[in-house]
Amino acid sequence: MTVDFESLRGRRVLVTGGLGFIGSNLARRLVELGADVVLVDSLIPEYGGNLFNVAGIEDRARVNISDVRDVHAFRHLVRDRELLFNLAGQTSHLDSMRDPVADLEINCAAQLNMLETCRRHAPGIKIVFASTRQIYGRPDYLPVDEKHILRPADVNGINKMAGEWYHILYNNVHGLKATALRLTNTFGPRMRVKDARQTFLGVWIKAVVRDEPFEVWGGQQLRDFSYVEDCVDALLAAATTDAVDGRFYNLAGDRVISLHDLAELLVEVAGGGRYEIKAFPPERKKIDIGDYYAEDTAFRTTTGWQARTRLGDGLAATLAFYRQNIDRYL
Amino acid sequence: MTVDFESLRGRRVLVTGGLGFIGSNLARRLVELGADVVLVDSLIPEYGGNLFNVAGIEDRARVNISDVRDVHAFRHLVRDRELLFNLAGQTSHLDSMRDPVADLEINCAAQLNMLETCRRHAPGIKIVFASTRQIYGRPDYLPVDEKHILRPADVNGINKMAGEWYHILYNNVHGLKATALRLTNTFGPRMRVKDARQTFLGVWIKAVVRDEPFEVWGGQQLRDFSYVEDCVDALLAAATTDAVDGRFYNLAGDRVISLHDLAELLVEVAGGGRYEIKAFPPERKKIDIGDYYAEDTAFRTTTGWQARTRLGDGLAATLAFYRQNIDRYL
Repeated sequence: MTVDFESLRGRRVLVTGGLGFIGSNLARRLVELGADVVLVDSLIPEYGGNLFNVAGIEDRARVNISDVRDVHAFRHLVRDRELLFNLAGQTSHLDSMRDPVADLEINCAAQLNMLETCRRHAPGIKIVFASTRQIYGRPDYLPVDEKHILRPADVNGINKMAGEWYHILYNNVHGLKATALRLTNTFGPRMRVKDARQTFLGVWIKAVVRDEPFEVWGGQQLRDFSYVEDCVDALLAAATTDAVDGRFYNLAGDRVISLHDLAELLVEVAGGGRYEIKAFPPERKKIDIGDYYAEDTAFRTTTGWQARTRLGDGLAATLAFYRQNIDRYL
Repeated sequence: MTVDFESLRGRRVLVTGGLGFIGSNLARRLVELGADVVLVDSLIPEYGGNLFNVAGIEDRARVNISDVRDVHAFRHLVRDRELLFNLAGQTSHLDSMRDPVADLEINCAAQLNMLETCRRHAPGIKIVFASTRQIYGRPDYLPVDEKHILRPADVNGINKMAGEWYHILYNNVHGLKATALRLTNTFGPRMRVKDARQTFLGVWIKAVVRDEPFEVWGGQQLRDFSYVEDCVDALLAAATTDAVDGRFYNLAGDRVISLHDLAELLVEVAGGGRYEIKAFPPERKKIDIGDYYAEDTAFRTTTGWQARTRLGDGLAATLAFYRQNIDRYL
């Protein structure tokens, strides 16, 4: 990582979804770097927010409990900010199919309202938006680069696609500075492990830590995984370099691995663990995307960022965190 | 046109946006074909609905004035229907930039609610959705085919993109039968001519009919134009062939023409008229997409449809209609 983050010292930063998985890891880093940090989160039980995620930095970041759909609260919070990391979102694919309108409210309507508010009340702000590989749907070719057509396979993917494009548009037309990072599967300390709403890997980790068996659905699917500290680096790199220019970038993981091999690696790193290979459940199969892994040359070239955590090391650090703190995440 | 529309006799059809430009022309044809037709429209003043559009068929189609955001009304209306032509939408690019949330409500939220309602209360229904070339944004290459990346250049384009994909998704995942036609610039009798909210060509036609000068902005941009009767043919072809399979198709016009040449052709067909070439207004320039014309081989191959109206003939028919009825559209 050659990017210099010292420029963030004293910067006034707002993080939506700031008590969530990626948001809280980002917040911790921003605090270390000496930024002036405000975190917004509504602690919706099915989402990723968890007050324990900011344990130890409570007195160095301001936490504001509110929903990003609350335009009045957001207007107040964003008014004096220079940088917005927009990470608030509904992430569950299955929930988006069961309650598509709630997903639309969070992932489309609230995004549009936030951008409108920024345009009117914080026109000089820079925005980094957490987009997702999910918007590509089932890939036509691998690795997926940014020229790949978008073909979202669930309501969540469609709404995130629209949410991303509002950001691009407000950059291009309204003069806000915005960029979108299409994150791949991200994992690490402070992720949701209670269920698979953020990532199936959370459920695996929880099982291993509690000495229970976990299930591998299918197993042959290829994926790439991004350790959360690398993801935080990327968000900071996007905010502090020329990447904020209305463009969208893929992030890729350290390596490509099948889910079966990932299960093997997890058990190896954990020094033990059991899993069963199961057939894909029907309701998941309908929205499954097959193999996916990304090409992220564009982002690396533009910012100098690169993933620096080996998958095994990331798994080890994650296991260590949950071995110590699993009770806070159940 | 080799498609047989006789199968529509007696079919129970719902048309949203049924008092609008394309909806009402479709309704007139459906009534001629002997279909059982219900039209839904809320007559929002800035949109395309106009009661005069159904003059002469009032006693052969049921008109229900309601908003597609009204889920209860829609549930009642769709319950016994076999075919849904979903044409309700906000169409103005500029309005979508001024009031993005209203555009989102109509073009995203209402679409999702309608699909949810169909899934629950009319699961056997076939849906043809009127999508738009607008979702492509500024083309990378011409003519634009369906493999072209989507890069919408305004809020309307983003929301229509999401609206289209909800249809594709509900086909793929929830077993509804749906298809989307990405319409190009459509013109003809019953279009909005009061202002450019539907198409700039409406304003041109109005000026010519009233013997006033019209303005051509830029003039070098290439476009293709679809006469509304050809568009109606395409909608019917999509509904009565294998095209309803979760796919999306471009429609292209009869020919490619620059706006300057189109102005010349209009004046020629009208037997007179005046226009001025003007620079593009700044607020429009930001969301302009440059040249656009489509490739529609996929739809023609699948359905047997093809455009049969020459551009000049379409303009002549449109002029004749507004010469007789202009007072109803001011």
